[in-house]
Amino acid sequence: MSGLRVVVVGAGLAGLAAARALRKGGAEVTVLEARQRVGGRTEGGVTAEGAVLELGGQWVGPTQTRMYELIAELGLATFPTYNSGQHVVSLGGRTTRMGARRGAVPKLSPFVLADLFQGLTRFERLAKQVPLDQPWRAPQADRLDAQTFETWIKRNLRTGIGRTYFQVATEAVFAAEPGDFSALHALFYAHSGTDFESLLSVDRGAQQDRIVGGSVKLAEKMAEELGEAVRLGEAVTGVEHGEGVRIRTRSGGLYEADRAVLTLPPTLAGRLEYAPLLPSWRDQLTQRLPAGAVIKTFAVYDEPFWREDGLTGQAASDEGPVKITFDNSPPSGEPGILLGFLEGAEARSWARRSDKERQEAVIGCLARYFGERARSYRQYLERDWAAEEFTRGCYGAHFVPGTWTAYGPLLRRPVGRLHWAGTECAPVWNGYMEGAVRSGETTASEVLQAG
Amino acid sequence: MSGLRVVVVGAGLAGLAAARALRKGGAEVTVLEARQRVGGRTEGGVTAEGAVLELGGQWVGPTQTRMYELIAELGLATFPTYNSGQHVVSLGGRTTRMGARRGAVPKLSPFVLADLFQGLTRFERLAKQVPLDQPWRAPQADRLDAQTFETWIKRNLRTGIGRTYFQVATEAVFAAEPGDFSALHALFYAHSGTDFESLLSVDRGAQQDRIVGGSVKLAEKMAEELGEAVRLGEAVTGVEHGEGVRIRTRSGGLYEADRAVLTLPPTLAGRLEYAPLLPSWRDQLTQRLPAGAVIKTFAVYDEPFWREDGLTGQAASDEGPVKITFDNSPPSGEPGILLGFLEGAEARSWARRSDKERQEAVIGCLARYFGERARSYRQYLERDWAAEEFTRGCYGAHFVPGTWTAYGPLLRRPVGRLHWAGTECAPVWNGYMEGAVRSGETTASEVLQAG
Repeated sequence: MSGLRVVVVGAGLAGLAAARALRKGGAEVTVLEARQRVGGRTEGGVTAEGAVLELGGQWVGPTQTRMYELIAELGLATFPTYNSGQHVVSLGGRTTRMGARRGAVPKLSPFVLADLFQGLTRFERLAKQVPLDQPWRAPQADRLDAQTFETWIKRNLRTGIGRTYFQVATEAVFAAEPGDFSALHALFYAHSGTDFESLLSVDRGAQQDRIVGGSVKLAEKMAEELGEAVRLGEAVTGVEHGEGVRIRTRSGGLYEADRAVLTLPPTLAGRLEYAPLLPSWRDQLTQRLPAGAVIKTFAVYDEPFWREDGLTGQAASDEGPVKITFDNSPPSGEPGILLGFLEGAEARSWARRSDKERQEAVIGCLARYFGERARSYRQYLERDWAAEEFTRGCYGAHFVPGTWTAYGPLLRRPVGRLHWAGTECAPVWNGYMEGAVRSGETTASEVLQAG
Repeated sequence: MSGLRVVVVGAGLAGLAAARALRKGGAEVTVLEARQRVGGRTEGGVTAEGAVLELGGQWVGPTQTRMYELIAELGLATFPTYNSGQHVVSLGGRTTRMGARRGAVPKLSPFVLADLFQGLTRFERLAKQVPLDQPWRAPQADRLDAQTFETWIKRNLRTGIGRTYFQVATEAVFAAEPGDFSALHALFYAHSGTDFESLLSVDRGAQQDRIVGGSVKLAEKMAEELGEAVRLGEAVTGVEHGEGVRIRTRSGGLYEADRAVLTLPPTLAGRLEYAPLLPSWRDQLTQRLPAGAVIKTFAVYDEPFWREDGLTGQAASDEGPVKITFDNSPPSGEPGILLGFLEGAEARSWARRSDKERQEAVIGCLARYFGERARSYRQYLERDWAAEEFTRGCYGAHFVPGTWTAYGPLLRRPVGRLHWAGTECAPVWNGYMEGAVRSGETTASEVLQAG
């Protein structure tokens, strides 16, 4: 084992977690990162006044056991996402408020509520039947993978508002439309993250906690530990593999190793130049894993004024461009920061408008949810993840119809000395930071075992 | 206009047709081709005895007016696909024969025939309503694009055999499964190639004629005309664009031009390194256009023995791996060549088996359709298009659900001085040689106009 040389491509959470585990296992590790920063789909930012912003993935929640462990290992701490008061809910042209406790229901007609209840119950029941390490073996997997989630929703919800609820929830969780991916993927993904309700919740859900100082601290701390082993500004372009591995970077770097762990999002991993070529099944797989589209926007205020009004800062609406918001202020509550998401179709169309138009539309939504004071912001910031050269879409890849059943069994299969990792490879908490870390660590032990 | 320098990337039919039209318009053109041959998804081969084989696209048919013109312009000739006698049809475990004339119906129960008739009628009626240059404006486009074609089939055909017929037809036309792409794409594609029946037919259909000497002659003749302008072995890796265009190749070549026409299949066009980066909409589009999977297999015989038995050499079956066959002998009928397709799911799974297993399975199918004499072949050959570095799947890209409505309007939109062409860009005969040529010529005039 000792002396095993491994190159890890990508210094996101998967790559850094893999590198750490590999080094712990006695391997000599080098991490190549295309950007001048670590963190991948987590990224730190600051407001004009120096307050912490989180431009990418940021939340942790129950059952993400590896994340809480890692946070403690790295000497970091969490704080609860602000969740006191009431949410703003705007569905079907009617704006109401609802409680922030998990299980609270929006003020809807009993007929709609009954429909929603039976739809969610049916969905959760089916989701639980999807084996996380083999979704293609779920009951009726072929049928569920040959239909879009949109088709499933249309068939299983009878009211317009019930369907709209699923649509908004889908956009929030996948940054894609329910027509973009298969029903099997929706079910797998919900089960992977416990259940659909957990994915949508702050209270005891996937958005429960935040990391003091910002989620990027995780990557920064791990990179610190790894020291010189992390090489920034090394964009990998070519991968030769056979007896060993030789990796070339855009700047002319050449790295030799016994094995490589590639942690890029699937669509980017598919773009490198491999010699020998990757087998057709691997190439066809990465052709079928497009990334979602999300623009994360921030409005900075002197104070979180919505709190005084008894509001959590969370809104959910079927009218965009911003359909989902959060209070993203630092633990001190100063400054007040509202986070607004443009997701799926909204992100796609609004990415093509001018910065000014987009900013006005976002602020307009915030005013609609939280009143006119939302127009008095000090600063507006945004991050369009599909425009990022080394990401090309967030939150993660979705499996388009037919992909899980045709290529799922090959998702994590190494090609010779090339091993794959990344949140898209994770059976548990696929698409989340937890999935990235777990996937990195799992692949690291596979590599150590292969030797 | 004169002195306009244009680099065309790809010497397939789209690239060569574009280059020819550009030169005719007064531009100075260079064609960069990654392979050591021209033709792209058309390719010539020979049997052990030197008879012509067509390893890629090969047929032309009615309404492909540009192809017949081009064939004449280049001094080539067509001959009819062998279509005398009866087809072998094997559906639901029952093997029968049916006439080769268009409109002939398989021997099925009146109940099944009625179902098939109403399903096909409904499909053709909807297909005609899809505007070819704007499929996203079809009636109910959003609904049709948010469901898979599989869902459409399940809803609109009531008998198992009726559904199976659509499934086999889909695999034959798209080299993909009906669950892989949207109903809107299926409708667009059929209308693009006149109608579904034309796509499936030899008699007055898309498989009516072949080109003497092989379809690759088209590319070879066009390349001959272009002479030194065509550079083989130049795999493009980088594209700088701004005031002008600078294109870099793997071997270190650098080509400067005023504009570029990129004719690569979408998934490959998305893998080049662009500076400045392509806008997010273009990247997200090419993430959503995966290529189909097909292995084209050939068994060579002393003579086309099936003809004596009154058979066309065409079989259609719901049992694979080979579900569709053709008599692919040269005009002389010597040697006899049976062409068997592994398409969609069959191509995916059989690509991962050994050569020997695959060959045995293919010959087994031919024996099932044409009798034991099919086992006495002189030579077996095959081409797996998904394994080809510079193609990565055939026949073409399919639009996964959501893609036409979200990104369709951007499909042909240039990015500065970069213009796109290829059969996937064609409104008419999308996915066919005709579409490639039309697209190349359309983009050439756009470039000449832009100047």
